[in-house]
Amino acid sequence: MAAEAADRRALLRRLFAAAVAAADPARCVPPALAELLPTPPRGRCIVVAAGKAAAAMARAVEDCWPGDLGQLEGFAVTRYGHGLSCRRIEVIEAAHPVPDAAGLAAAQRALDSVRGLTADDLVLVLLSGGGSALLALPAEGVSLADKQAVTRSLLKCGAAIDEINCVRKHLSAIKGGRLACAAAPAQVLTLAISDVPGDDASVIASGPTVPDATTCADALAILDRHGVAAPPAVRALLAAGTTETPKPGDERFLKATTRIVATAGDALAAAAEAARAAGYTPLVLGDTIEGEAREAARVLGGIALSCARNGVPLAPPCVLLSGGETTVTVRGSGRGGRNAEFLLALALALGGHGRIHAVACDTDGIDGSEDNAGALLAPDTLARARAAGLDARGRLADNDAWGFFDALGDLVVTGPTRTNVNDFRAILIEPGA
Amino acid sequence: MAAEAADRRALLRRLFAAAVAAADPARCVPPALAELLPTPPRGRCIVVAAGKAAAAMARAVEDCWPGDLGQLEGFAVTRYGHGLSCRRIEVIEAAHPVPDAAGLAAAQRALDSVRGLTADDLVLVLLSGGGSALLALPAEGVSLADKQAVTRSLLKCGAAIDEINCVRKHLSAIKGGRLACAAAPAQVLTLAISDVPGDDASVIASGPTVPDATTCADALAILDRHGVAAPPAVRALLAAGTTETPKPGDERFLKATTRIVATAGDALAAAAEAARAAGYTPLVLGDTIEGEAREAARVLGGIALSCARNGVPLAPPCVLLSGGETTVTVRGSGRGGRNAEFLLALALALGGHGRIHAVACDTDGIDGSEDNAGALLAPDTLARARAAGLDARGRLADNDAWGFFDALGDLVVTGPTRTNVNDFRAILIEPGA
Repeated sequence: MAAEAADRRALLRRLFAAAVAAADPARCVPPALAELLPTPPRGRCIVVAAGKAAAAMARAVEDCWPGDLGQLEGFAVTRYGHGLSCRRIEVIEAAHPVPDAAGLAAAQRALDSVRGLTADDLVLVLLSGGGSALLALPAEGVSLADKQAVTRSLLKCGAAIDEINCVRKHLSAIKGGRLACAAAPAQVLTLAISDVPGDDASVIASGPTVPDATTCADALAILDRHGVAAPPAVRALLAAGTTETPKPGDERFLKATTRIVATAGDALAAAAEAARAAGYTPLVLGDTIEGEAREAARVLGGIALSCARNGVPLAPPCVLLSGGETTVTVRGSGRGGRNAEFLLALALALGGHGRIHAVACDTDGIDGSEDNAGALLAPDTLARARAAGLDARGRLADNDAWGFFDALGDLVVTGPTRTNVNDFRAILIEPGA
Repeated sequence: MAAEAADRRALLRRLFAAAVAAADPARCVPPALAELLPTPPRGRCIVVAAGKAAAAMARAVEDCWPGDLGQLEGFAVTRYGHGLSCRRIEVIEAAHPVPDAAGLAAAQRALDSVRGLTADDLVLVLLSGGGSALLALPAEGVSLADKQAVTRSLLKCGAAIDEINCVRKHLSAIKGGRLACAAAPAQVLTLAISDVPGDDASVIASGPTVPDATTCADALAILDRHGVAAPPAVRALLAAGTTETPKPGDERFLKATTRIVATAGDALAAAAEAARAAGYTPLVLGDTIEGEAREAARVLGGIALSCARNGVPLAPPCVLLSGGETTVTVRGSGRGGRNAEFLLALALALGGHGRIHAVACDTDGIDGSEDNAGALLAPDTLARARAAGLDARGRLADNDAWGFFDALGDLVVTGPTRTNVNDFRAILIEPGA
């Protein structure tokens, strides 16, 4: 029985690893670059990489660059701890999710480095999740402190990622297409690893090279909807439309191309294949699961229980796979990211069901602001917690899922994976005896 | 386009009708009775029916009774408005979800009518959802007002139905197996239509004829978990274990048999068949979906969007079917049951997606305490709301989904269906152009 439990844990870790591997820049960048840039540009090539996968994407570009490596200039800005040394491209680290001075300097450098280019030059933009915070430059008239306060408030009140990005675009000097506009008339080629539902390029890293259809008015409405008390200067700029973004149809985008090289859907498909190889029928519920983490757990837990009890929608052995990005409305004072919180709520929803195991991890290797990627759930999770004097409901009420799974030794710790296709969840249902 | 939209609405109504028909007592009671009671009992036959389907189940028994109708005595207690005239069995109406004096009298009558029976007699118990409130008799030492206050608090704070039932069993003189104990040594045959996740007979109508594994201590823990300030008399009885229920193994259950004659799973399977006949691939996500209605909507909406965008888990044309019982934590002052609230939140989660239609209804025909079964959602729901000056987010914040869909003319009003297999949701995804 103990050996079986260990097998399930190993399998769940394998499924997660398969998902992450499908979005590894070393695997997904080279074919896209070979197709879109079979020969190097005639002029200069400026690399601007930003996001949790930035360093790994930059290295992948160096490894498959079709010309002389000496032609490459530029830098990659990634989250602290997600760095990786490159040969030509400078790697910088900065703060995420709340931007700091390093991210500010990186954004200013990006804009400066693409100004004054010619039509023979190429700007190669490598984007991934987290790029919004890592390439942060407030619009004129907005202080970094103001922008940080607004971002923090939006994160805290559980706003959706596209809402946060809409606001950020309209308080930014670089996002929402402004980087591409600055680079014109140079060619702009963007390769992106998507961490957003729907894989909309204008949302990934707040779309610095993609025209923006949202408006200052939308941004204001989002602040109001979530009751965010933005500084008066911010509200005034938005109300006046001063920080409006460039819109679709703007001719400065004529030489801008974007290719999404990896998505959460790709990662889930890879995990599904690994599950099938292990004898479990996979069902991918999609890469778009949103909602409060603890409530999403009750819904997905309900589907898992239906599989276990009635073989609907799938007869065991089977696995329910899903991606997306849940949110956590912080009410307590504990530690824990959305994946651990999802899993703790799932444990409670399943009530110790004897045939269900699960993993929930952030594919970037960091669940929220903790040191773990996520955690593992087994049929005996609640029983072991009780034996250890851990109050599962109390911990959930206190948003202390990290503390809960840490005490059980069930955290998944991978370190930064240097890619990011958002949350990964696998719920494994074993057949009855 | 208008004709197509009308087609989708008609199809969604058909799917709901198919689900309800599968749980119609006239269809599901006769075969079970024929199998379990091929000949009438030698002695008396006392009918005790309780729940939203009680009158319809009683009539179905009369219609297929294997002997002389004159042998039947007893009554059926159902919700106000769910009555139906029978030939021999008296039909009574009482209050739901908060019990009233009529439910109290019915429970007392049920206990009185089964006392002093012999081994030749039969008690035929016909149970369905709502039976808990309709067959309500406080345990000695508990006032009806106390019991009502506790029930109301639990409903209001979003407790799950099995939690509410556990508390009710331990404040009751009839639930949790006590009716069967009172009837011994007579034979007790229970036919039940399940409205509970997992179709556990001890939960349906709080299991008046089934032994109860939960304890007074469990009931106290549920009150504490939800911060319900129960009257001191109630807490004292629970703490002392005075109102403990009869447990599995008790010999008074030796002649008690229970058969579940219809479930939410049956209803969903029938809807799936109807969908397939209409050319839509069905996926039943199970009959066990719980969680806060507005959050469940975000999760199921995410799955629907994934179908629309990526053909995962299903390629359109397809339909996602699910049952279960979501909850609503009331914070606003508007009108609306959980199905309408689910649908309003779904509209917001889908953001006016052009190829998704949906229906969410309570199979009993009454969404919460309103006059509608549920409502319909179309791609233009949000646009029509804006045109009508309806603020969808504001209405959701105010728990006013009934008002929202009423203003749009999109309520589904069927009147009481006289059965109950809980919530029914169908989300239809059309293929792209």
